[in-house]
Amino acid sequence: MVNLQSDERLDYLLAEDLRIIQSPSVFSFSLDAVLLARFAYMPFRGGKIVDLCTGNGVIPLFLSARTKGEIIGIELQERLADMAQRSIALNGLEKQITIENGNVIGIAKKIGYELYDAVTCNPPYFPANEASARNKSEYYTIARHEVELTLDQAVKSASELLKQGGKAAFVHRPGRLLDIITSMRQYRLEPKRIRFVYPKEGKEANTLLIEAIKDGKPDLKILPPLYVYRENEEYTEEVRQLLYGAE
Amino acid sequence: MVNLQSDERLDYLLAEDLRIIQSPSVFSFSLDAVLLARFAYMPFRGGKIVDLCTGNGVIPLFLSARTKGEIIGIELQERLADMAQRSIALNGLEKQITIENGNVIGIAKKIGYELYDAVTCNPPYFPANEASARNKSEYYTIARHEVELTLDQAVKSASELLKQGGKAAFVHRPGRLLDIITSMRQYRLEPKRIRFVYPKEGKEANTLLIEAIKDGKPDLKILPPLYVYRENEEYTEEVRQLLYGAE
Repeated sequence: MVNLQSDERLDYLLAEDLRIIQSPSVFSFSLDAVLLARFAYMPFRGGKIVDLCTGNGVIPLFLSARTKGEIIGIELQERLADMAQRSIALNGLEKQITIENGNVIGIAKKIGYELYDAVTCNPPYFPANEASARNKSEYYTIARHEVELTLDQAVKSASELLKQGGKAAFVHRPGRLLDIITSMRQYRLEPKRIRFVYPKEGKEANTLLIEAIKDGKPDLKILPPLYVYRENEEYTEEVRQLLYGAE
Repeated sequence: MVNLQSDERLDYLLAEDLRIIQSPSVFSFSLDAVLLARFAYMPFRGGKIVDLCTGNGVIPLFLSARTKGEIIGIELQERLADMAQRSIALNGLEKQITIENGNVIGIAKKIGYELYDAVTCNPPYFPANEASARNKSEYYTIARHEVELTLDQAVKSASELLKQGGKAAFVHRPGRLLDIITSMRQYRLEPKRIRFVYPKEGKEANTLLIEAIKDGKPDLKILPPLYVYRENEEYTEEVRQLLYGAE
């Protein structure tokens, strides 16, 4: 039994054999969320995980296939939190995944300081004042622009949630590399792994995956590049595997 | 007429049709120097350029093929500065390239503050206390370890030399990315272009090329990756072109 609103549709996360409620007018998950869900460290047995800015819950859904740990998704927008909750019920994952409809800022006060093993975050990418790229829909504006949450605030919340040795994984634009690194170090998160995502060979990177360890020692690794498209505009084999699983 | 000491040999910079004096027991240039010389912005007509930690002068020699500007190479070690000077004479480039035998720390006091359009630097890579990788020869130790010059001091000197809008290009290890970015921003150098160098496909990056603009606006680009070797251990086409020129 699926309860869909008029502008919603049901999509499949093929590689995970899960279903997710999306709405083109409100929120659809991006490839970046999939990449982050695969990139982030996950404690397979047990562990407690938080996904900040969870939107329609796509990252917790993906993560549920990689860990037996408890996952909490935090989403400010009530409509999106509700979509996430219904998707979780649809997949029978209510015991593993909880959605918290609330603000990422100060979230540790609500769900606990330094209790978590891993935090993921696909935050709003664009500065609040970057009008050119602003979306007409209020839902998209909040999800994509730093109007309700800055990158620095998101990093701060991640650090407050994490135990010592816990891992924070973010996805963002390469243009914000310096900002994210500066914020991470300010909040005791030491960057350890970076992977740049390139739309195709010969192009500049357009996405950045970064993972830091709370109170970790400096020792940064730059992983092999990830290419999204081949010359012929088809997905590369690696991205096909992430999206559709083994064939 | 070449005046070679007993442990020296004459090598060819094929792509540039230049010759250079090297000594396996004292100093030989690395691929990193070649990559930096190709990566760095060069004002083709006129302009004033400084190469810090110039060693046997390999970077100024490479740069002389890309610019008509004046180039000054700074080298602390007298023996290396002398090798550089003889290589420059050998190629008849005394009018374009000058070698200054002195300390990179405080060099702007000697050759002028904020006068230069571009600075390049292939600094010592290894922390002074990293004994494991320390070389037996004092020449190599100073060239490769931060015993006489830290990364932060090198970045500071680069900034002092550069005009507003001038460009600083460094090559280093990816593990020092955070340190180099932190130092650059501290000294008004805004990172604009980064290129990671991978030994081959599927491996982590082992070299980092980074260029910053003095007082530039934040807008970092991550360039396509550069691979050094193919699967069969031969140089990739791109590296062959850099080393040997068009065939």
